[in-house]
Amino acid sequence: MDSRQPDVDPAVVATADDIAAMRIRGAATIADAAAEALATQAKRSDATAPDVFERQLRAAAKMLYETRPTAVSLPNALRYVLHGMGGASVSALRDATTDRAEEFQRELARAQTTLGSIGANRLRDGDVVMTHCHSTDALACLEAALEDGKAIEAIVKETRPRKQGHITARQLREWDVPVTLIVDNAARRYLDEADHVLVGADSIAADGSVINKIGTSGLAVNARERGVPVMVAAQTIKLHPDTMTGHTVEIEMRDEAEVLSDEQRVDIVGDATDAGDGLVVENPAFDVTPPRYVDAIVTERGQFPPESIVTLMRELFGETTGEPWEP
Amino acid sequence: MDSRQPDVDPAVVATADDIAAMRIRGAATIADAAAEALATQAKRSDATAPDVFERQLRAAAKMLYETRPTAVSLPNALRYVLHGMGGASVSALRDATTDRAEEFQRELARAQTTLGSIGANRLRDGDVVMTHCHSTDALACLEAALEDGKAIEAIVKETRPRKQGHITARQLREWDVPVTLIVDNAARRYLDEADHVLVGADSIAADGSVINKIGTSGLAVNARERGVPVMVAAQTIKLHPDTMTGHTVEIEMRDEAEVLSDEQRVDIVGDATDAGDGLVVENPAFDVTPPRYVDAIVTERGQFPPESIVTLMRELFGETTGEPWEP
Amino acid sequence: MDSRQPDVDPAVVATADDIAAMRIRGAATIADAAAEALATQAKRSDATAPDVFERQLRAAAKMLYETRPTAVSLPNALRYVLHGMGGASVSALRDATTDRAEEFQRELARAQTTLGSIGANRLRDGDVVMTHCHSTDALACLEAALEDGKAIEAIVKETRPRKQGHITARQLREWDVPVTLIVDNAARRYLDEADHVLVGADSIAADGSVINKIGTSGLAVNARERGVPVMVAAQTIKLHPDTMTGHTVEIEMRDEAEVLSDEQRVDIVGDATDAGDGLVVENPAFDVTPPRYVDAIVTERGQFPPESIVTLMRELFGETTGEPWEP
Amino acid sequence: MDSRQPDVDPAVVATADDIAAMRIRGAATIADAAAEALATQAKRSDATAPDVFERQLRAAAKMLYETRPTAVSLPNALRYVLHGMGGASVSALRDATTDRAEEFQRELARAQTTLGSIGANRLRDGDVVMTHCHSTDALACLEAALEDGKAIEAIVKETRPRKQGHITARQLREWDVPVTLIVDNAARRYLDEADHVLVGADSIAADGSVINKIGTSGLAVNARERGVPVMVAAQTIKLHPDTMTGHTVEIEMRDEAEVLSDEQRVDIVGDATDAGDGLVVENPAFDVTPPRYVDAIVTERGQFPPESIVTLMRELFGETTGEPWEP
Amino acid sequence: MDSRQPDVDPAVVATADDIAAMRIRGAATIADAAAEALATQAKRSDATAPDVFERQLRAAAKMLYETRPTAVSLPNALRYVLHGMGGASVSALRDATTDRAEEFQRELARAQTTLGSIGANRLRDGDVVMTHCHSTDALACLEAALEDGKAIEAIVKETRPRKQGHITARQLREWDVPVTLIVDNAARRYLDEADHVLVGADSIAADGSVINKIGTSGLAVNARERGVPVMVAAQTIKLHPDTMTGHTVEIEMRDEAEVLSDEQRVDIVGDATDAGDGLVVENPAFDVTPPRYVDAIVTERGQFPPESIVTLMRELFGETTGEPWEP
Amino acid sequence: MDSRQPDVDPAVVATADDIAAMRIRGAATIADAAAEALATQAKRSDATAPDVFERQLRAAAKMLYETRPTAVSLPNALRYVLHGMGGASVSALRDATTDRAEEFQRELARAQTTLGSIGANRLRDGDVVMTHCHSTDALACLEAALEDGKAIEAIVKETRPRKQGHITARQLREWDVPVTLIVDNAARRYLDEADHVLVGADSIAADGSVINKIGTSGLAVNARERGVPVMVAAQTIKLHPDTMTGHTVEIEMRDEAEVLSDEQRVDIVGDATDAGDGLVVENPAFDVTPPRYVDAIVTERGQFPPESIVTLMRELFGETTGEPWEP
Repeated sequence: MDSRQPDVDPAVVATADDIAAMRIRGAATIADAAAEALATQAKRSDATAPDVFERQLRAAAKMLYETRPTAVSLPNALRYVLHGMGGASVSALRDATTDRAEEFQRELARAQTTLGSIGANRLRDGDVVMTHCHSTDALACLEAALEDGKAIEAIVKETRPRKQGHITARQLREWDVPVTLIVDNAARRYLDEADHVLVGADSIAADGSVINKIGTSGLAVNARERGVPVMVAAQTIKLHPDTMTGHTVEIEMRDEAEVLSDEQRVDIVGDATDAGDGLVVENPAFDVTPPRYVDAIVTERGQFPPESIVTLMRELFGETTGEPWEP
Repeated sequence: MDSRQPDVDPAVVATADDIAAMRIRGAATIADAAAEALATQAKRSDATAPDVFERQLRAAAKMLYETRPTAVSLPNALRYVLHGMGGASVSALRDATTDRAEEFQRELARAQTTLGSIGANRLRDGDVVMTHCHSTDALACLEAALEDGKAIEAIVKETRPRKQGHITARQLREWDVPVTLIVDNAARRYLDEADHVLVGADSIAADGSVINKIGTSGLAVNARERGVPVMVAAQTIKLHPDTMTGHTVEIEMRDEAEVLSDEQRVDIVGDATDAGDGLVVENPAFDVTPPRYVDAIVTERGQFPPESIVTLMRELFGETTGEPWEP
Repeated sequence: MDSRQPDVDPAVVATADDIAAMRIRGAATIADAAAEALATQAKRSDATAPDVFERQLRAAAKMLYETRPTAVSLPNALRYVLHGMGGASVSALRDATTDRAEEFQRELARAQTTLGSIGANRLRDGDVVMTHCHSTDALACLEAALEDGKAIEAIVKETRPRKQGHITARQLREWDVPVTLIVDNAARRYLDEADHVLVGADSIAADGSVINKIGTSGLAVNARERGVPVMVAAQTIKLHPDTMTGHTVEIEMRDEAEVLSDEQRVDIVGDATDAGDGLVVENPAFDVTPPRYVDAIVTERGQFPPESIVTLMRELFGETTGEPWEP
Repeated sequence: MDSRQPDVDPAVVATADDIAAMRIRGAATIADAAAEALATQAKRSDATAPDVFERQLRAAAKMLYETRPTAVSLPNALRYVLHGMGGASVSALRDATTDRAEEFQRELARAQTTLGSIGANRLRDGDVVMTHCHSTDALACLEAALEDGKAIEAIVKETRPRKQGHITARQLREWDVPVTLIVDNAARRYLDEADHVLVGADSIAADGSVINKIGTSGLAVNARERGVPVMVAAQTIKLHPDTMTGHTVEIEMRDEAEVLSDEQRVDIVGDATDAGDGLVVENPAFDVTPPRYVDAIVTERGQFPPESIVTLMRELFGETTGEPWEP
Repeated sequence: MDSRQPDVDPAVVATADDIAAMRIRGAATIADAAAEALATQAKRSDATAPDVFERQLRAAAKMLYETRPTAVSLPNALRYVLHGMGGASVSALRDATTDRAEEFQRELARAQTTLGSIGANRLRDGDVVMTHCHSTDALACLEAALEDGKAIEAIVKETRPRKQGHITARQLREWDVPVTLIVDNAARRYLDEADHVLVGADSIAADGSVINKIGTSGLAVNARERGVPVMVAAQTIKLHPDTMTGHTVEIEMRDEAEVLSDEQRVDIVGDATDAGDGLVVENPAFDVTPPRYVDAIVTERGQFPPESIVTLMRELFGETTGEPWEP
Repeated sequence: MDSRQPDVDPAVVATADDIAAMRIRGAATIADAAAEALATQAKRSDATAPDVFERQLRAAAKMLYETRPTAVSLPNALRYVLHGMGGASVSALRDATTDRAEEFQRELARAQTTLGSIGANRLRDGDVVMTHCHSTDALACLEAALEDGKAIEAIVKETRPRKQGHITARQLREWDVPVTLIVDNAARRYLDEADHVLVGADSIAADGSVINKIGTSGLAVNARERGVPVMVAAQTIKLHPDTMTGHTVEIEMRDEAEVLSDEQRVDIVGDATDAGDGLVVENPAFDVTPPRYVDAIVTERGQFPPESIVTLMRELFGETTGEPWEP
């Protein structure tokens, strides 16, 4: 009986599907959904024996994890919730798990606000901030600065291929922040008018590297050359514990259609649209910025030089390096 | 009589219009058209006195010049042709001028081929070249290398906003060069696979700065950081003599529509599409790369470190700094 | 009754005045005086109820704090002493507070000696040290090196505007150290003869930045360019806990008279000595040296790369960020 | 009686002699031998009183320590074993000490394997690694990567004067790794073909400096200039606790004969082979690489940016700074 | 008779005295005075034979040269005038020499104006310029920019020890330029608000080095680090032909009293004011800025990257390297 | 008749053999021998018709050139001598050619002395110079400095694989210069004690690159990092005219036996000494130092920043790019 595949609740399957299809995206949203899914699994479990309950939860965690193994917040959420799963009866396990999931979600919600107020402290009245891509952590810093009464202006890079800079621009305009929109190629020219580069992070590695939207590293190199400090806003949910054991973060390669439409391809290569047409489109989602080009990583636990973030990782995660769903 | 505005031939007016409307574009094409227009003016002139002929030619030059005063090859072409205008009779002036225009056009055509073979000498069999924008001078180097039997691969940046990288990719595919197309943001990541960065130039200043398509300077800074040499291919027609007297090259600001469509603007700011909607789009056509990030400028006169290009300028133009149409 | 403003002892007022007027200055001296003042307040308190006693002490702390909110050692001293204020009776509170203040002062006195011997270990016999401004922490390193029998020479920057380099020079001459005095402008030239740059710190931020006497950052940049390591001597009392939450250290702007006398102003602008005479004198007391230009921060707890000093902050202060006088 | 020099077992003397003569060398081998020697001393001790036993052990430790006070793993081993020496009787002390020595040796053996698998995670299939000198820690990373099925190639610097690169090359060939052997002078040229520089460490200082075989720092500077990351593989036994208190690591000066034979000297100076012949040969064994040129230090406890290694030191050693053999 | 020391006119002696005593100072003023003195010598010569006349002129040149052999404009003026001394009779020689001197003075006067308009072309409306020391060449650029209708603001470094920044500030205030005066130590902080660093030069060497007032090189290094371009304004009279043959420019060491008053010395060393009191004051007048930190050298012949200034030297001076007064 | 291979004198063949076998080596020695060989050919020619004489000379030049096409001084010598070959009779041609060869040799001999005195001007009394490899041009600078009465000390890198540093050391000891000999790996450590890096050049390219003994570029990078200026001593015979047209200098790959003896190979790979044994030895003779790491190139025509050397090339060689032996 024990060897059978434990039942996973359809709500968990649905969440997993949504994460896989990127209908649920953004690190915090994914983490929140994963915690919520585990809570649902716990609430709806029909297990009558504690070990069956536990196996169900671990199976749910494994299913969720495998949708996007490179989404760093996912294993962190799973680790956190499962770590609180304890008790001698199914009822006790259920309560402990749902409580833990709620706690995680509550802290997660608060994290961005706290991070925002810390990041805002680095900004002065009248500062001009250059952004890359769209990051709610980065925006939280700007929002808190605005709430502190500081006037802030933004230079927004459009961030090809998906132009998430437009989302950033829309949010900033809602807050009435004057926005200058530029193509990514224009960044160096406008760095002379910026007081800060402010970006989010997809994940942060133990060697202090910042993995973020493609283009971040090139921007950071130019910011250093132009004398503009670079500030990364990232909740601790973005810290990548696997990297403490030397693992590098796998860079997702995305669909070529984000870069080149079929018509554009035909324009370039003619009708020879088969695999052997000599034209390859490479579309990596992220790149790696070495710590030496980052001035501070702002988290809800305070700000850190990138070279010391490994210390925070060790505080939060210890030296554990097993798979997230393992006991 | 002398004070009347001299007649300018309709063909010159048409050429001027085409340059202004960018139907004629590209430095060499503009220079060629300008020389052609002056030759046409000379051929069709109904002047009966030498001074009238000369005034007509200077008026034609002035009209052509003023269409795009920032197009560096234009004054050079005008200077060259008018400098050869000499003779005691209208007939002699006409012959001298048309001969001079032909000579200029002939040398101009040869320049790119010569430049290409010089640039090709810097490339080795098996090299991978990263390009930015579209430059026929840069492509001439690749073409010559291919003709020398060298295998070359290209990493082509799409070059927002106008994606001229697609034109480059198409040309390279015609020559059967394997092409990897990337967004501009991905440049730093792919520099690790490149042996050269190869770009053209819009113009080159006496302090060794290279004015080229927006994004060139940020690429050059990253190329230095990654240890990849940067090679600029530019005919001497791109050297900007005004800069010897400290003039900076004015950077053309282009239409916001290249960056943001009306619908995208509405998405960002809602219906508030008036000038005061708080969203500015800046769309500079070019940027300035300091000489310290450029390893060599390849011209049809040989290759030069950017810091010594002023010497070549002085050889070609002396210390003359008057307006191109002035005697 | 409780709402009345609690009495603050005249001795505390006097100390506050002395700090405000810079008759008491230097981080350790201020910290020592603040602890002493709290002890005096405790000894002389006429409070008969514990809560009155506590309110008096907090009022004294607040008064002291507000004299120079940017003097980082001041809140640290206040935090430390008040944190030890405990007991059920006025008598017990008084004893606890005075004991705590004594302990603080004792450890403070020892800190510089310990720091000195650690810093001295970085110096070798025969080394030449370049100094900026006057720092007793920096001098403690030199004194300990001399006591270890090492021959040390010093290049002393005069440190405009207040020329505290003269104080450094006098102290070094008392210890018989050969001194070369130079203007600040001559620093780069003499860096070629220096084995170390040794400075103190006004405060140290969580992002690893060193806030120190104006001119430090420019010196550090040049030291890196010349290949000379930069060593900052700073007791942990200089660590600035507010910066863990992103706060930047406010830079004190000092009196223009330190830079320009009235006569010199008249020489420059004539009699137009009103505010609108077009001549502004900016006289910031400190500047900010990024961690990448500092090789080691030497404290009484050991030496640290600047990027890891946040770890020491977290050990000493935890994540507490309230005002120093608050319960 | 107590003042007599306690007996040290001949086996300890023999080990000390072997370490002094470099018959035992390599940090781990020395540490293992030192632990073994202390265990032997414990087993063979004829002491009848606990204080005599302890004095014997401390004398043995002192004798071992003084053979090569600059060999950083030696004091660490001694500290570790003596720290476990406890008990009320000679028998209890003997058991505790031998158990402790065994534990140390067991963990030491495991450390390299763990470190290897962590370091291997930084390497990708197809990577080319440049090595300097011979380091079993560095080789452990390569071995683990090979065991993970990754294809790795190596560029091996011969590493004058002693050409330990040959040992590295031999080991790599045994594992069937394709090896390109070069002289040290050729490093910059071949860095363009390397994905990593991988070296070991003789010791690591609290300021993040890496002390390693002479030539490491020059290689690291060039690797940064060429855009190649530098990875240092070093067990925590290489961390140098004395440096927390500012001590610099003394650099061993080795025999001139490693650099210049007698015949070569005669060739240069003729027969004037006395001390005053004007030709000095300097042969330092190690140099110091500043942390800013190192991307990661890989230990068996995880990987760290060099600037944060002081945090790991504090975890492992606290702030203790006495001599290794002292109580 | 010929071997007697030829008579030098008292006016030449007076000019030489004035140069030596620095009553005549500034490169152009010295050059002008030297030319004037030679003209006076020519006019007042009582020589009756051509060779006597020539010897007198050469003796005058030698006397003038030796007053300040490090003043680069002096030998240039002397070379220029003597080079024009030709003719078969005393009368012809006199006329040629005075004509030549006048020509030199006339071109010299024009040089600064021309240089100013070239330098002004590099400045844009609204720019903020940081200055160091006092240079009429640099001021000429600002004056021309103001005349072009550009609004310019200035950050003026006081420039210890002699505070020539005050002279610069006074001139700028006369032109109604808003001035911010800072101590030299504050330069890095205010570079963030500057668009240009603009300095003069004492002399310029063939390797592209700029010799200028002490502090220039440290400022230039910081300007590069902050991303601010450095512009040197220097008439060609500042080019140092001796450096083409590798000569380095000797740096004048000035009086210690400029740095330290007698009272300040007593404050530091007590009454021990003898040479052996252990306190040395070093007061170099100039330092050397390597060409890599300078973006452009603006002369009346156009602007040049510092690395190409040797080409201009060769145009002006050829490869002649004899003493200025020699035939 | 004309199509027959013209006779080449046995002395020319012998010289060609000596160059090929490196019995004649060193740029100046090769150039001198080539000129001498052409003179001998001219003297011994039995041609009776001028065109036969010329064909013989060109055939001799071609034979000499092809022995070491990468030896840059060889084509320069040949170009120089043949350029002077003119006359209407065999007799006249013979005289012109031998005169020209003598002139070349005379100037060549003087070049090094002149270069030496120019280079010596950059050195000050008491300077310490670090050398790499053996260069008579570099030594000429030191010799001239010694003759000027300056005390000079040298740090000599042994320069693996061929240890030409020993030759340098021997020469310096003959001149009684104190020598410190180090392995190449120790360079960065001893740069702190050096005032100059002084090297020769194999050839110099139009883009300012210096091609010199393998290891030069790595040394130059470290010298910049340590703040030590790099000076290249190279007669103009080392300027490589082909590089003006973009040609890169082919780097000679030398015998593996210079790096690894057969025994050492067996030690590494066992008996598997066939081509497929997985051990490749790469032994490039030279590397390429980018101009940005070189402070000055000292020639007999004066000193130049590397970025301006192309100007000197154009003066000496114009834009001619044909083969050296062609008419």
